[in-house]
Amino acid sequence: MSKDSLLSLLEAASGVYVSGEEISKKLNVSRTAVWKQVQKLETQGYVIEAVPRLGYRLTGKPSKLSVHELLSRLNTTTFGRNLKLSDVVSSTQDELRRLAEEGALEGTLVIAEQQTKGRGRMGRSWLSPAGKGIWMSLLLRPPVALPYTPQLTLLAAVALSRAISQLVPVSIGIKWPNDLLVDGRKISGILLESAAEDERLRYVVVGMGISVNLEQEDYPEELAAKAISLKMASGAAVNRSELIAAILEEFERLYELYLEQGFAPIRALWEARTVTLNRPAVLQTPQGVIQGVPRGLDDMGGLVIELEDGSSRTVYSGEVGNGQAGANG
Amino acid sequence: MSKDSLLSLLEAASGVYVSGEEISKKLNVSRTAVWKQVQKLETQGYVIEAVPRLGYRLTGKPSKLSVHELLSRLNTTTFGRNLKLSDVVSSTQDELRRLAEEGALEGTLVIAEQQTKGRGRMGRSWLSPAGKGIWMSLLLRPPVALPYTPQLTLLAAVALSRAISQLVPVSIGIKWPNDLLVDGRKISGILLESAAEDERLRYVVVGMGISVNLEQEDYPEELAAKAISLKMASGAAVNRSELIAAILEEFERLYELYLEQGFAPIRALWEARTVTLNRPAVLQTPQGVIQGVPRGLDDMGGLVIELEDGSSRTVYSGEVGNGQAGANG
Repeated sequence: MSKDSLLSLLEAASGVYVSGEEISKKLNVSRTAVWKQVQKLETQGYVIEAVPRLGYRLTGKPSKLSVHELLSRLNTTTFGRNLKLSDVVSSTQDELRRLAEEGALEGTLVIAEQQTKGRGRMGRSWLSPAGKGIWMSLLLRPPVALPYTPQLTLLAAVALSRAISQLVPVSIGIKWPNDLLVDGRKISGILLESAAEDERLRYVVVGMGISVNLEQEDYPEELAAKAISLKMASGAAVNRSELIAAILEEFERLYELYLEQGFAPIRALWEARTVTLNRPAVLQTPQGVIQGVPRGLDDMGGLVIELEDGSSRTVYSGEVGNGQAGANG
Repeated sequence: MSKDSLLSLLEAASGVYVSGEEISKKLNVSRTAVWKQVQKLETQGYVIEAVPRLGYRLTGKPSKLSVHELLSRLNTTTFGRNLKLSDVVSSTQDELRRLAEEGALEGTLVIAEQQTKGRGRMGRSWLSPAGKGIWMSLLLRPPVALPYTPQLTLLAAVALSRAISQLVPVSIGIKWPNDLLVDGRKISGILLESAAEDERLRYVVVGMGISVNLEQEDYPEELAAKAISLKMASGAAVNRSELIAAILEEFERLYELYLEQGFAPIRALWEARTVTLNRPAVLQTPQGVIQGVPRGLDDMGGLVIELEDGSSRTVYSGEVGNGQAGANG
């Protein structure tokens, strides 16, 4: 049985219940097979009510993104103007990296309804179910030297958190360097991948994963307590097209500000929104574990930690806390 | 006519002259075609004497590198232990980057007798004729954060210049960041390509091009005044295997020192060997042209420039001088 035939059957019923028995007969499959297909459709964004004795009823379809709608909402000069939207990709990062190597322009955007191998920080996987989140990658070709890339990481976090706050009534805190939290639970992760020749950045691919309309049951057990979606946090579904347009606009605005005025304004915005500063923290870094109190950012974008002996140390890479923050939750 | 048939003819003559007429008859081609093939063989490292009325005589064959010989000379733990030697590649950088993405180990080395698309800095091409130079790329997977890569660029220059000085009696000056000069002419260029996820370096591919046994006539006109080979500078041919082994040993030693003790010792070695400090310079940077006097390196590996008004500015990316230094000369 293909899920299309089950779908046609439910759609033909126009919101009326169809019993499992009837479906099973018409499609000539077992009732277990029907149940499995129902679950599969649900992972794709369909909402199907199952009521004992009554059967199944289609109450919601996935709201799919459309290039036309996205472009009509865009208020940017370059960001998102070259746009590639796919139903399924293994990873928008890999897709855009390939385009970048082929010479794609700054601002090129790759979006997918679903990622089968979404990646988070530190090589972890990133849950990217169909139709329920924003899984996208943006290409930058910044005329800045390699050592300044931490600044871009921080800029991305500021852009994302500001854009979300414009549309959704939630209070977002940035966890160093670029995780976005609501009530201590993660709603978004950012992954920057960069390629350089000597100190010249060839390109930066900014991966953004935002849990928009996921439900509690979309999360596997190990993420349930650490992750949250915008819908769960605010109580209402969020229009993904609108949010994508807002993110691109805010990102482009801050990026231009950064190229004109340098890191100072970005630093101030980041420091104003972070939850990492001025509380004791344990940092996992490539050089080992550091304990201390993060006090602020330095000129390069490094995190300045005050150590127990009163001295300070700056770190550019690592994670705050239990080392789990790279995954969705 | 294939150059192999001309080569067999010359080899069969065992050092005795073969007239152009005879070759032309035996191979059934014009004398111009013979002359063109002779030139082609010379670009591959063959030495062919041409004397009017006597004809052509083979007096030297390219000394080819061998994996066996290289490994027997190696005094390293990891550098060069995984070794890939090819006759011709488009670029050792591209070859090694591909291996790096497939998971190659730190220390993996790609060497080629000849590159058809050798790359220098800023996307310039790099002259890499067969058998006459060292064209190689070394894979590093350093446990350091992205902003520190300028330090690796400088480390590479120190390693190369020290290794060459051990074997060849020439006085080498490092031009910021990593060109090696003899009497103001370039003998070597280094190109680092790095890939990072956030601030975590995934890998660095260190490309090294050393003009070892090139002759004046190997250089095209535009490079003739700016480039020089070790053989031209010292008056004697240099054993490439020996030099490769010395470079890998010195590079590994300094790399271990750097991972243990940080940048301070590398910085001192670089400053001791550079020709860039304390003389007025014009720097081309991504942010524009800067004029001033370079005074030293900062903790991150940036070049600190004293400006006319007495203030100072640090640059991480750019070129000193006329902007031509990225090519061989």
